[in-house]
Amino acid sequence: MLKKDIDACFDSDVGLVHTFVPTSEVQRKYTIKKSQEEVIQMAVEAVQYIKDNGRKCMFSAMDATRTEPEYLIEVFKAVQEAGCDIINVPDTVGVMVPSAMYRQIKDIAAEIRIPIDVHCHNDFGLAVANSLMAVEAGASQVQVTVNGIGERAGNADLSQTVMSLIAIYGAKTNIRTEYLVETSKLVENYTGVRLPPNTPVVGQNAFSHESGIHSQGVLEKSDTFEPGIMTPEMVGHKRRIVLGKHTGKHAVKQSLESAGIITNDKQLDEIVSRIKEIANKGKQITDADLNAVASAVLGKASSEEELIKLKEVSVMTGNILTPTAVVKADIEGKEIISAKTGVGPVDAALNAVRDILGENNHFKLQEFRIDAITGGADALADVYIGLENEKGRIVTARSANPDIVMASVEALVNAMNLLYKKEKKAKTIG
Amino acid sequence: MLKKDIDACFDSDVGLVHTFVPTSEVQRKYTIKKSQEEVIQMAVEAVQYIKDNGRKCMFSAMDATRTEPEYLIEVFKAVQEAGCDIINVPDTVGVMVPSAMYRQIKDIAAEIRIPIDVHCHNDFGLAVANSLMAVEAGASQVQVTVNGIGERAGNADLSQTVMSLIAIYGAKTNIRTEYLVETSKLVENYTGVRLPPNTPVVGQNAFSHESGIHSQGVLEKSDTFEPGIMTPEMVGHKRRIVLGKHTGKHAVKQSLESAGIITNDKQLDEIVSRIKEIANKGKQITDADLNAVASAVLGKASSEEELIKLKEVSVMTGNILTPTAVVKADIEGKEIISAKTGVGPVDAALNAVRDILGENNHFKLQEFRIDAITGGADALADVYIGLENEKGRIVTARSANPDIVMASVEALVNAMNLLYKKEKKAKTIG
Repeated sequence: MLKKDIDACFDSDVGLVHTFVPTSEVQRKYTIKKSQEEVIQMAVEAVQYIKDNGRKCMFSAMDATRTEPEYLIEVFKAVQEAGCDIINVPDTVGVMVPSAMYRQIKDIAAEIRIPIDVHCHNDFGLAVANSLMAVEAGASQVQVTVNGIGERAGNADLSQTVMSLIAIYGAKTNIRTEYLVETSKLVENYTGVRLPPNTPVVGQNAFSHESGIHSQGVLEKSDTFEPGIMTPEMVGHKRRIVLGKHTGKHAVKQSLESAGIITNDKQLDEIVSRIKEIANKGKQITDADLNAVASAVLGKASSEEELIKLKEVSVMTGNILTPTAVVKADIEGKEIISAKTGVGPVDAALNAVRDILGENNHFKLQEFRIDAITGGADALADVYIGLENEKGRIVTARSANPDIVMASVEALVNAMNLLYKKEKKAKTIG
Repeated sequence: MLKKDIDACFDSDVGLVHTFVPTSEVQRKYTIKKSQEEVIQMAVEAVQYIKDNGRKCMFSAMDATRTEPEYLIEVFKAVQEAGCDIINVPDTVGVMVPSAMYRQIKDIAAEIRIPIDVHCHNDFGLAVANSLMAVEAGASQVQVTVNGIGERAGNADLSQTVMSLIAIYGAKTNIRTEYLVETSKLVENYTGVRLPPNTPVVGQNAFSHESGIHSQGVLEKSDTFEPGIMTPEMVGHKRRIVLGKHTGKHAVKQSLESAGIITNDKQLDEIVSRIKEIANKGKQITDADLNAVASAVLGKASSEEELIKLKEVSVMTGNILTPTAVVKADIEGKEIISAKTGVGPVDAALNAVRDILGENNHFKLQEFRIDAITGGADALADVYIGLENEKGRIVTARSANPDIVMASVEALVNAMNLLYKKEKKAKTIG
């Protein structure tokens, strides 16, 4: 509302100025200490000042959803009269439920001619739903943020709101939805605020299915267990079938065969049961897990076929020495030593491990993720690695260790051994 | 539906058996390959079998919300006739919007006498909203999960659903809401699935306010910028006022004074502007940040007052040596050396740093958090530490370094120095 702030907007040459004043009783009394009449006067003066200077104007009645309903409409009518172009109805502390939001916007739309915008907060997890109900009731704009970022519990999420409007309501928007996942990841990286895997639309699990009855259906016809109206491709995502506690024999057999492992029925039952055991601990099943379980069940020491047999890992770091790692390993019977530096001990260790393969190191680290299982400096670090070879073949491996360096080294060696084994099998079959 | 599975329920001596069959066309055709009539027959037989064995029965029509509405009611009437106690309406692929959910449950409630339960999925972020609308339309039970965990984007979240029902609708439940935050943290730790700070109700930021106009209001009367109907105490949470990019002079001055730092107006302006600069990079402002900025502006080398001047940190780890750290530091002019082991290099380093204070080490590590800013093994590790002394005084500090060990050491030393400075000031004032 302050003239000085509005002038600053003019100076920065904006086309539209969004101005606001708190209208609810609690805000009038404690935040700005003004009467109902004073608030209307301030609102009208600000809007007139913006319109007199030839700009478009959006006016927000802050805390609108806790404002006396008749008084709120009085405020909106006054700014409409003053030439305001758009009114905004903010649910400032996120207390609306969808049915209440619908009624309030319907009531406002019945009295106001200019377009209605809404700004919903997510304190009860209802920001997206309230935005959609506002649209049903006549709002023509909704305010959203990438990854739902905002004050306290944040605001309505871009991806969820847009995909609901497009996929469920059949609305047209100018959003290029195929970039939603990429945009979300970008904001994750810049803010450091990570989304959990079960985040709608853009989360890692949004289109992932544990094999079992669900994945059978999905493989045959994807919309059996996906909202068919929203496909992974629409939002720039990928469908994933993962092994888990509901995984059946059929899926495990397929995975084993694709890794060149042949089993009889009894062995397969045992492998399935062990896979479920790991999954029941809440772990994601990696290729290396499946391989280790299969080797154990088939009675092979899984180390027998290993390309890299790790002998020694020594890593140093500190404030007056460069992070350095020494790795000694047997590679097909030959002892190889490598020493490498890095930006930190984990980086140095992984550099040394990759170096021991010499010219055969044509693997790309496609994913590297550290999850601390519990809090504290002595927590178990759970490192997950995705490794890709020249032909685009990807294997995943994991290791948990209270030593973050050793967890990283073990996961990488597991993945490298597995990739080597797959390449060897492919050659044998070829 | 399988007799063998129902028998297994009886064997485990349950009071209620929840049985289900897919009813939508896509599921009938691709998942179970049965006709409408066959599905009804299967449902009725299963319910009758359960009731004949003297158990309560809940029946779910899987994918109910994509089932032909008349046929769905036909299925529910058939199982009601067969003695079913509760029917469940699952939104299996999460495609409902709140208005549609309301209408569907209303229609079902008009035809069915037994209680209605709903099971909502969160594919579009609408699971909580849909559950609430189902209750408005006549459902008497809703299915929720802690932290919204479930297939794909998960299910309706416990905390959000329960707090909406209690705080907005005024419903009575048996939930002891003061344990919601603790329960959520427990599940975070067991699953390893971390909630972002902007998670509604239980998230770290749910009741946190950046100082500025909002926090002034909150300090005077908390429900200016909080949903007053839900207080932090109700859910076992705490209100936090943090410094950030909207922080005003008043709040910074207060924070400085509480740390015993007195400034003139010009110095204060400069400190505020530097604090906003850090905040604009998306960083949380720690006590150590404020102190470092104040020292710089007041022209003091901030190292002047430091208790611990770090000289050397050397840390080793590997597979055939115990993680060991050596720390050399000047403490009030005296050189102290400490060597300690730990479960990993970070743990060893922090043990050694804490050891150099000898008997004066009466600090408790109250929080320790590592955030990798970007992916990859060479990512910057951002370590955040909360340290508490015997009197319950807490200071926070942070350090970012591509070396995870050094980031941890620096953050801990920053926090220890600050806590020491505060104690010294308290003594001087005392």
